[in-house]
Amino acid sequence: MMSEYTKHARQRRTGNEVVHIPRYTHDNVQHLRLTLLENQLQLLAQKKKKNKSVLILINGVELAGKGEAVTQLREWVDPRYLKVLSPMAGELADNMPFWQRYATGLPANGEIVVLFGNWYADLLYTCLHSKKKSQEALATYLEHMHAFESYLNDQGVTLVKCWFDSSWSFLQKQLAELDDGQKKLVHLLDLDWSNKKEYDKIQALRKKYLSDYVVIDDEDARKRAFHLGHLVLHAIKTPTVAASPSVKKWQHAAIPYVLQHPDTHKTDKNQYKTALAKKQQQAVGLLRAHIKHAGVVIMFEGMDAAGKGGAIKRLVSAMDPREYEINNISAPSEHELQYPYLWRFWCKMPHENNLHNMGISIFDRSWYGRVLVERVEELIPDGLWQRSYEEINQFEQQLHDCGIKVIKFWLSISADEQLSRFMSRQETPYKKYKLTNDDWRNRGKWDAYLQAAADMFAHTSTDHSPWHVIATNDKRAARLQVLDAIIKHLEDK
Amino acid sequence: MMSEYTKHARQRRTGNEVVHIPRYTHDNVQHLRLTLLENQLQLLAQKKKKNKSVLILINGVELAGKGEAVTQLREWVDPRYLKVLSPMAGELADNMPFWQRYATGLPANGEIVVLFGNWYADLLYTCLHSKKKSQEALATYLEHMHAFESYLNDQGVTLVKCWFDSSWSFLQKQLAELDDGQKKLVHLLDLDWSNKKEYDKIQALRKKYLSDYVVIDDEDARKRAFHLGHLVLHAIKTPTVAASPSVKKWQHAAIPYVLQHPDTHKTDKNQYKTALAKKQQQAVGLLRAHIKHAGVVIMFEGMDAAGKGGAIKRLVSAMDPREYEINNISAPSEHELQYPYLWRFWCKMPHENNLHNMGISIFDRSWYGRVLVERVEELIPDGLWQRSYEEINQFEQQLHDCGIKVIKFWLSISADEQLSRFMSRQETPYKKYKLTNDDWRNRGKWDAYLQAAADMFAHTSTDHSPWHVIATNDKRAARLQVLDAIIKHLEDK
Repeated sequence: MMSEYTKHARQRRTGNEVVHIPRYTHDNVQHLRLTLLENQLQLLAQKKKKNKSVLILINGVELAGKGEAVTQLREWVDPRYLKVLSPMAGELADNMPFWQRYATGLPANGEIVVLFGNWYADLLYTCLHSKKKSQEALATYLEHMHAFESYLNDQGVTLVKCWFDSSWSFLQKQLAELDDGQKKLVHLLDLDWSNKKEYDKIQALRKKYLSDYVVIDDEDARKRAFHLGHLVLHAIKTPTVAASPSVKKWQHAAIPYVLQHPDTHKTDKNQYKTALAKKQQQAVGLLRAHIKHAGVVIMFEGMDAAGKGGAIKRLVSAMDPREYEINNISAPSEHELQYPYLWRFWCKMPHENNLHNMGISIFDRSWYGRVLVERVEELIPDGLWQRSYEEINQFEQQLHDCGIKVIKFWLSISADEQLSRFMSRQETPYKKYKLTNDDWRNRGKWDAYLQAAADMFAHTSTDHSPWHVIATNDKRAARLQVLDAIIKHLEDK
Repeated sequence: MMSEYTKHARQRRTGNEVVHIPRYTHDNVQHLRLTLLENQLQLLAQKKKKNKSVLILINGVELAGKGEAVTQLREWVDPRYLKVLSPMAGELADNMPFWQRYATGLPANGEIVVLFGNWYADLLYTCLHSKKKSQEALATYLEHMHAFESYLNDQGVTLVKCWFDSSWSFLQKQLAELDDGQKKLVHLLDLDWSNKKEYDKIQALRKKYLSDYVVIDDEDARKRAFHLGHLVLHAIKTPTVAASPSVKKWQHAAIPYVLQHPDTHKTDKNQYKTALAKKQQQAVGLLRAHIKHAGVVIMFEGMDAAGKGGAIKRLVSAMDPREYEINNISAPSEHELQYPYLWRFWCKMPHENNLHNMGISIFDRSWYGRVLVERVEELIPDGLWQRSYEEINQFEQQLHDCGIKVIKFWLSISADEQLSRFMSRQETPYKKYKLTNDDWRNRGKWDAYLQAAADMFAHTSTDHSPWHVIATNDKRAARLQVLDAIIKHLEDK
């Protein structure tokens, strides 16, 4: 069930504004060059203080001068902080989000990145060469792409989207001037660029899907670079989005009963052992079947000592460590802080080709830290965590749409039980390290965390990825319920 | 020409020492668990101060309990700092170093990483399934692997290499107990494990190539984990290698004539333009031909303002920015400092499947910073930079052996010419940013840098990757010579 808040999410704008391009003169080129450099160095100087970077998506027809324009741009700015990436375009994958291939290439604060190959190249490639995707599926992709870019924009990544264009006649004139060796290099998007039908098709697709691109179509290479330079300058100068205004009268969600009464009947030890073994086997079988097609994300949140580690341990004990990866999430590192908030999680999604990830990604704490610890500890303004519910929902929707299961648990514990577990940790030599001052501090904010959890359930429980709230005062019952929920989740579809 | 220093390199030991394994008792298990945890936490606490991490390579026969043992290990330690990676084994590639696939997975300081899939799995896979590699080629791979591990060890990465073994009869007994579903999962190294011939073959290969592995072959799963735990504990406790003793009477190399007299005839502007265009085209054609098979690394070192940027600009201006990547190297970030010194360069090597790299990797400054700035500024002890020549030679040899060309330039400038270029930078608005206080400071250490360069040439000029020292007082002549050298380098083979 999607929350009202999310449904009525503000529409935030992305893409290019109309940028005034001055007349091409020697003086104006010199001025552009200097201003670009100055602004780039200023961008860089502020990178620790400010989330701000520039991402330039370049697409276009063959021989329209994309490469030359970027070469010129590189000469105008300090090339150390201008990365150029150009992965080959390919078909949009069925089992991973469109951004997966590009996540590690996104700009850190202060950087400018040019992406020649990008998700739009993949989208065009898919339209041209694959019959598998329906019009609806393509429209959904486009929607996700816009939402993703809107998120980047909100996180300080300003986008520039340029389409380098040539008229049919100019393109043919250029093709005619190529020697045989050069002709072999003309294979953008695997098209035959001397075929008018293919040319028209790509133009139609461009108008349909890339309507918010700025078109650069001057026949003079110097003017194209001049145009691009101004777009980039404008992007560097565009102020980052201020934190959204906070919702002054934030509507607190009601705190679910189980959060305040996490007591359960004691489970008999022998019954538990038998049931555990059976459910483990069942869950692992279903997980193995699913990861043949797409990944699974299993995520645990809850108060300290609520049993996240124990539940994970029982879940994985019937699996092979090669089948899963456990991500224990704590505060982001300085390196990670240079990227959009969700970035470090993008890089941890299940993905068969990724050395660091296998089919099953388990999270001990997660991206929900944004609306839990960061909210309660007031690490971010109210507007920011309030907006995060929507961002998280979009992220999980993208995963869902490519078949990745997201299974979310909140392990609920009573304050008394937590205290007794803290005490036991203090007394057990190999558990002592688990208890830190933070744990005691967090305990002091018990009610604030309960409220944050309740709001989180209200705003991020969706049909495809509901929150499973599990009472854990009886650890055995809790572990069985976790397995039950996983089994049910995977059996459902 | 390999230097004497390199030829007679000290043999440094890697691999496992004999570790005493106590008797398996309940008390000893409890003791192991506690000590492991304590030592892991200590390792972590020192991560900013000390280069120390642990890399566990696990290989073995099917069903020998590798997974179970690692699951147990994960329960004993703090799992947040134990990463488990298991990429599929595959054939050793012809055009990239064996470590390429694994570089990003190596442990940072304080971390413990288990690599189930690793370069030895690839080596075994290649022996079993490919006829393409000769015995000599395989022997060379093995040598490189040992050198690489020796380097890791010297940089504070302590290795544990375990072979999990089963006798033929025990393995068959286990296979017989599997149900059909489980049998499908038994495909390690794509072998038929119920075939005695294949079993014998893998054992023979293990003895031949993995002779320095510790064999864990207990039939009791608990004892296998206990054994592994002790190996890991020993590795955590193993002190990191102290910096090698410095060579007290370091033999300074003679300073080449061109370094002190980098004057060249002025090149006529018109002749230059014609020659430049012709040579650019020739160089780009050869580069394009080469990167079909393997990558090219082109690297520039030299005093400040010697013209590195200008030479790179002329080199790439005839190329498309999608064909190359320019890496401008400055001091390592805090993140990079958590890894072996060469690590950040491993991650920047040309590699077609890498989003960040294309066929041609250009470096503006490079790994030679170790024996230039780090030596001259006394950032590291003498023993460390003295040892680096050998490490760098091994690194470049590994690249060479898989067909990657490494083309190295030192751009030589006179002190007077540098001064006049500094002055001109100060006066040109869009060049001003290039001149920093560091440049003036470095200028004060002119002679020390000259000596460091001379020693570098003497110790790292090899047959396959000689230093090209280019006089750059006349920029035009220098740029043509750079292109000439690249052309010659690529034509030679």
